[in-house]
Amino acid sequence: MSSRPSPVSRRRLLAGGAVAGLGAVAAAGATVVTGAADVLPVQAAVPDTGTATVPFYGTRQAGVAQDPPAQAAFVALTLAAGTDKRAVARMMRLLTDDAARLTRGEPALGDTDATLAVLPARLTVTFGFGPGLYAVAGQRSPVADLPAFAIDRLEKRWSGGDLLLQICADDPLTVTHTQRMLIKDARPFAAVRWVQQGFRRSPGVQSPEHTQRNVLGQLDGTANPRGPGIDPAVWNPDGSTQLVVRRIRAEIEKWDLLSVTDKENAVGRRMATGAPLSGTDEHDDPDFTALDDAGLPKIPDFSHVTRAHVTDPAMKILRRPYNYDGVPNALGHPDAGLIFAAFQRDIARQFVPIQQRLADKDLLNEWITPIGSAVFAVPPGCSEGGWIGEQVLA
Amino acid sequence: MSSRPSPVSRRRLLAGGAVAGLGAVAAAGATVVTGAADVLPVQAAVPDTGTATVPFYGTRQAGVAQDPPAQAAFVALTLAAGTDKRAVARMMRLLTDDAARLTRGEPALGDTDATLAVLPARLTVTFGFGPGLYAVAGQRSPVADLPAFAIDRLEKRWSGGDLLLQICADDPLTVTHTQRMLIKDARPFAAVRWVQQGFRRSPGVQSPEHTQRNVLGQLDGTANPRGPGIDPAVWNPDGSTQLVVRRIRAEIEKWDLLSVTDKENAVGRRMATGAPLSGTDEHDDPDFTALDDAGLPKIPDFSHVTRAHVTDPAMKILRRPYNYDGVPNALGHPDAGLIFAAFQRDIARQFVPIQQRLADKDLLNEWITPIGSAVFAVPPGCSEGGWIGEQVLA
Repeated sequence: MSSRPSPVSRRRLLAGGAVAGLGAVAAAGATVVTGAADVLPVQAAVPDTGTATVPFYGTRQAGVAQDPPAQAAFVALTLAAGTDKRAVARMMRLLTDDAARLTRGEPALGDTDATLAVLPARLTVTFGFGPGLYAVAGQRSPVADLPAFAIDRLEKRWSGGDLLLQICADDPLTVTHTQRMLIKDARPFAAVRWVQQGFRRSPGVQSPEHTQRNVLGQLDGTANPRGPGIDPAVWNPDGSTQLVVRRIRAEIEKWDLLSVTDKENAVGRRMATGAPLSGTDEHDDPDFTALDDAGLPKIPDFSHVTRAHVTDPAMKILRRPYNYDGVPNALGHPDAGLIFAAFQRDIARQFVPIQQRLADKDLLNEWITPIGSAVFAVPPGCSEGGWIGEQVLA
Repeated sequence: MSSRPSPVSRRRLLAGGAVAGLGAVAAAGATVVTGAADVLPVQAAVPDTGTATVPFYGTRQAGVAQDPPAQAAFVALTLAAGTDKRAVARMMRLLTDDAARLTRGEPALGDTDATLAVLPARLTVTFGFGPGLYAVAGQRSPVADLPAFAIDRLEKRWSGGDLLLQICADDPLTVTHTQRMLIKDARPFAAVRWVQQGFRRSPGVQSPEHTQRNVLGQLDGTANPRGPGIDPAVWNPDGSTQLVVRRIRAEIEKWDLLSVTDKENAVGRRMATGAPLSGTDEHDDPDFTALDDAGLPKIPDFSHVTRAHVTDPAMKILRRPYNYDGVPNALGHPDAGLIFAAFQRDIARQFVPIQQRLADKDLLNEWITPIGSAVFAVPPGCSEGGWIGEQVLA
């Protein structure tokens, strides 16, 4: 990568209704170019944080392989009694059209606040189908509810769902508006089952290639497949994938009692750097055979990284988690944790064995509690004129 | 302002743990400089979104006159029975120290997750004292509960409070961590009464000089005092000010039924531009004498802008609102609205008459409902070694 500075036009930065945020472009390795033709040939437009878009149409849905934007709402709907296959198809035609427009920064056809639609901020809307939707469609569901895990303390108010809308954008008002329009248009067909709102670092606070910390202070996502590594883990040949959404409450009051060393033994990684206890850098491969001076494994057998480790690229999962932080109780105990969202080709073959190993023996279980769980098939994307779910519902 | 482009080093943008977000600097008119000395003389460091700080110490508290960051938590505490004046003073010494450190990007002394403290993202912590704190201190309170307004539907769970922590930053994880540390340290002295979490546009989505829209699509804050206009409205000679926090539920389902013209008559401004109905630009002064072709006032007498209008610079209020968006109910009706936060020298002389005029006759009342209300005196800032509230509690 050249070290020659790419000039950025102040005029451009200062112009218009939105200021250019260069984070995404620069960090992605794209060339930062200028609007001033007298400086350097213009190679591409500089997208800014507010007007940046992610293409909606394609053989695969958006909102999976892209770096996760800062804000998300996961909206699970329950189909109303009497909503048959043809009604679901009508709903999906409508919601697809809404999503295609809103992700371009255009109002939905029935938008009641067009002014709120103009800053998409990398908005994506990803649709997932639960087992109940396949039942209505008279088709075999590609996904089944997860087996019960001993660690689970699932609450119905965070579990299940016939249709999932995963709405992600770099701006919270954009997420709010999109959620409102999609729910409004889904209302004749379905009720809101649950909504989980989550966040990651704001745009520009950290570059995308840096792993973010979760509310427990852990670097979260180090072992994720990246770039070309995503394909074998996530995408089926038809462009479909599968999504697990679990709500993981952090037992922060108990976690706060631990020393840094105790936390590191539970996780298997250094808190400060994310390096495995056998190594020095975050992305060093963990060496589970390495022994310390006392002859004990440097990475304890009960650590989270030991139990979650997967080497086969086709068996990895793509975690795309968001933090949540609700309102603390009167005693000041936080209601915080993780909206664990993970994509993989096949939940039963990829996610379930990992989760089973973690449930059997993972010291971290002492400080995290799954309180919600849902599974969704994510159908292929569609081209302009098509709609999401046409393979299932047409 | 020069149109000569200021080069920005890609090397700098790509380096380190955080990518430079140029929005705030560029929009403030500061010179965007480069880290590459071979291009232009370095004039100032480029602050980035994650590491940007707002000074804590000063004669006035931070978090009032600064452009509001993207995320906020308003935390109201109730002093525990038996917490006397000396205990409150100990608590304020502790919380002042926490706030001074965290706003610099350093862990609090008792920080249980130091790794989460390093990206302050313009963090401010502003302390407000409710009438109950003055009662404990044996002093006359500068603020009193608001009179009852006919439009109010106040809920106890969003009202009152002895101590307010207004926590604002451009990053939600920073707000979450700061909230957790301050509540933890306040716990021996006080219970959590309520927490209201709010948002504005993410950093870089809109430049600070552009008025933001609220969840009803209205440009919100056009009439705010700006720059030197803030002083006569907000600051008392001793560096104190006063804060009203009201939770205003938006009746979005009803609002959505209105035509754009009906919305504009209720507000008194154009939805698209924010211009008063008598003018063409957002910042045109409203002309309440202007008549339309039918001889009727262009700005209806019952409009929000008519009722809220203040001309005397010393009688204006500084609105610093955040949006909220809770979880919609099963029918999909949003739980959204505004955390109306406004600073002024004297709530009784400035805010109350405006609110009384709005309560008496403001068409917008049809679509907004105050459901929470609290008042706080905001004591002066402090210098290093001092603490917030020493004038009241020492």
